[in-house]
Amino acid sequence: MVAGASTAQPSVIDAALSCLAGLREAQPQVHIITSPVAQDLTANALLAVGAQPSMSIASGEIEAFSERTDSFVANLGMLDDQRRLGLTAALPILHRRGVPWVLDPVKVDRSPARAAFAQSLLPYEPAVIRANRWEMPLVAEHAPDAVHATTGAVDLVVHRSREIRLANGDPLMTQVTAMGCAGTAILAAFLAIEGDPWLAAASALLVIGVAGEIAGEIAEGPGSFRTIWLDQLYLMDEPKLRARARIA
Amino acid sequence: MVAGASTAQPSVIDAALSCLAGLREAQPQVHIITSPVAQDLTANALLAVGAQPSMSIASGEIEAFSERTDSFVANLGMLDDQRRLGLTAALPILHRRGVPWVLDPVKVDRSPARAAFAQSLLPYEPAVIRANRWEMPLVAEHAPDAVHATTGAVDLVVHRSREIRLANGDPLMTQVTAMGCAGTAILAAFLAIEGDPWLAAASALLVIGVAGEIAGEIAEGPGSFRTIWLDQLYLMDEPKLRARARIA
Amino acid sequence: MVAGASTAQPSVIDAALSCLAGLREAQPQVHIITSPVAQDLTANALLAVGAQPSMSIASGEIEAFSERTDSFVANLGMLDDQRRLGLTAALPILHRRGVPWVLDPVKVDRSPARAAFAQSLLPYEPAVIRANRWEMPLVAEHAPDAVHATTGAVDLVVHRSREIRLANGDPLMTQVTAMGCAGTAILAAFLAIEGDPWLAAASALLVIGVAGEIAGEIAEGPGSFRTIWLDQLYLMDEPKLRARARIA
Repeated sequence: MVAGASTAQPSVIDAALSCLAGLREAQPQVHIITSPVAQDLTANALLAVGAQPSMSIASGEIEAFSERTDSFVANLGMLDDQRRLGLTAALPILHRRGVPWVLDPVKVDRSPARAAFAQSLLPYEPAVIRANRWEMPLVAEHAPDAVHATTGAVDLVVHRSREIRLANGDPLMTQVTAMGCAGTAILAAFLAIEGDPWLAAASALLVIGVAGEIAGEIAEGPGSFRTIWLDQLYLMDEPKLRARARIA
Repeated sequence: MVAGASTAQPSVIDAALSCLAGLREAQPQVHIITSPVAQDLTANALLAVGAQPSMSIASGEIEAFSERTDSFVANLGMLDDQRRLGLTAALPILHRRGVPWVLDPVKVDRSPARAAFAQSLLPYEPAVIRANRWEMPLVAEHAPDAVHATTGAVDLVVHRSREIRLANGDPLMTQVTAMGCAGTAILAAFLAIEGDPWLAAASALLVIGVAGEIAGEIAEGPGSFRTIWLDQLYLMDEPKLRARARIA
Repeated sequence: MVAGASTAQPSVIDAALSCLAGLREAQPQVHIITSPVAQDLTANALLAVGAQPSMSIASGEIEAFSERTDSFVANLGMLDDQRRLGLTAALPILHRRGVPWVLDPVKVDRSPARAAFAQSLLPYEPAVIRANRWEMPLVAEHAPDAVHATTGAVDLVVHRSREIRLANGDPLMTQVTAMGCAGTAILAAFLAIEGDPWLAAASALLVIGVAGEIAGEIAEGPGSFRTIWLDQLYLMDEPKLRARARIA
C-alpha cells in the first residue's frame, strides 16, 4: 500500500458512487468511434451504467452527434478510412466545445501506421489515455497533460504527480473480446459526470474491476462471465465497492 | 380498455400464435439493412422465432437477396453511404415484387439529413413504420397508408381507423442495445406470414413484450435479460400469451 | 461405423486434446476476415479455446497482420469491396509464408458473384474448406488438395482417401447466428497447432460438437445456448471428449 492510500481509497470509492448516481440521473450521451467487434459490448456496458451510447461515423452525421455528446471515445481498433475520417471530423468539434474524450490506442505497438495516426490526434488533448503497458509508451510521452490509465492485472492511473493502483478484476476479463474497449467507454461515461479526469478514470476502473471480480466468482467460463459482468455493472452499489475495493 | 377490446384481444393472440407456427414451419427469409451494432441481436432474434436472416449490403449482392427475400427491414441506425446505396438498390426491387417491408427511422429526430433520407424512402410504401414517439412524427404524416407502430412503455399500433395498445414489456428492455431494432426485424418476420400488416405488427409486438416481461422477472440485470429474452422468444407458446397479454 | 473407426477415434480425440493444450500454451494469433455479424462470436470462440483473434481489414494494416498471424480465415459472409480488397492483399502474403488458412464460402450457392470470387481465391491453396452441403460443391472440385469439411447434423471431413464422420452437436446450433463462422475460426486455430490439416479439422469439429452437445443439454433456448457453448469450449477436457465423442 503506497503512502496516502488511507485517504485516496475513500475518495475514489466516493467518486465512483457519485458517478454511478449521476449517470443514472443524467443519462449523458457518450459518442464512441470504435471497432465493429467492440460495438455491441461497448453499447451494452454504457447502458448498464446509465449512459446513452451513440456510434455513428458517417460523414454528414458525425458532426451533429459531436455537437451534442457529453463525452467521447476514440478507439483505434480495426482502424479504417471511414473511422479515420470520422475522428478527423469529430475531434475539432469536441476540442472547441471542451468535451472530455478518451483515447484508446489499440494495438499501436503492432502497426506503425496506427501509432502515427494516434500521435496525430494528441493536439486535440484527450482527457485520458487508456492503454495496456505495450501500447501506452507509444503515446504517453507526447501527451504529458493527459491522465495515463494503464490497465492490466493491476491498473495504474497517473496524472502528473498523482498516482493510484487498482487491483480488482479477474483473469477471465482477458478471455472476452472487447472488455478493454467497453471499459474505455465506461471511463468516458464517468468523465461526463466527474470533472476531475484522474478521479473519473480511477473510479471507473474501480467499478469495472469490482464487477469483473464478482462475475469471476459466479461465471462458469467466458460466455457467462460477459453476461454476469454486465449484470454486475448494473447492480453495482456501495456495499460491494466498500467491501471489495483493493486500492493502493 | 377501449371499446372492442374484448374482440380485439383474442384476434391478436390468435394471430401471434398463427404467425409463430407459420414461422417455424416456413422459415421465411428476412433481409435486413441495419446498424452494425444491431446485427448480432437482430439475427439471433429472427432465428429464435424461426426466420432466416440475411444482411448483405454489398452492391452486386443486395439485388440477388432482394429478389428472394420474403420481407425486409430498412433500419436507419448508423446510416452511412454503403447502407444508403444498399437501400436505394433494394427498395425498388421489393416494391416491384410487392414484398412487405418495415421502416425503422432510428434517430431521425436527431439528424435532419437522416430525416430527409427517411422521407425519400416513403414512395416505396413501407407496410409498417416502427418508431418511438420522437421519431414517428417526422415520417408518419408522409405515409398515411402505412401502419404506424409507436413503441414505448405502451405500444400503439394504428392503421387508419384501427388502433390497439399493448402494455407488456419490462423497463430492462431500454437497458439493452438494439432491442428496438431486433423488435422491428421480428415485426418483419411476422409480415412474411400474416397478410394484414396491422395484425402482423400488433401480434409481433405482443410476442416481443410478453417475452420481455418474462425475461424481466428472471433476469438479474441487462446482461442476463438479453439472453433470457432470446430464450423466451424461442419458447413462446399459447399459455404464456393468453395468461399475460395486456391489450386495450 | 466405418472401417478403421476403432483406430481413427482415439487419434482424433488425442489430436483434439493436444491442440487444446497447445492453444492454451502458445496462444497463437488467428487473423479473420469475416462478416460483421460474426465478429463478436468468432472473437469470443477463439479466446475461449486460447487463441488470440485479430480482424483488421484496413488497407495499410492487413499486410502487417498477415506477416505475423499463425493462421487465417477467409469467410465470405456479407462480402463487400473492403473485404474483397483485404482478402486480395492478405492471401498472397499468407501463401508466400506458408501460413495455413481456411476458406468459408458462405452462401456461394445464393450469389453467383460470390461463387466466382471464392473460386478466384483457390490458387492461394486453402488448407481446409469449411462449408455446408449446398456451398461445398461450388468450390470443392476446384480445390482437390484441400481438406473438405462439410458440416451439418453429421460433419464429414475428407482429404483425398481419408474420411471421417463426426456426429456430435445439437439442433440449437442452427438457431444461433454465426455458429458456423465461429466454428471455422476454431478450425483455423487448431491448424496453427496441428500440422496435419485433416486431423486439425476433424479434431476442431469434434470439440465444437461436444461443446454444443453439452450446451444443448443445459440451455433453455438459443440465447443461453450461445453463452454456455462458449463456457464449454473453455472448459473442454479429456473426460468430456472421451465420454461423448461420436466418430465413425
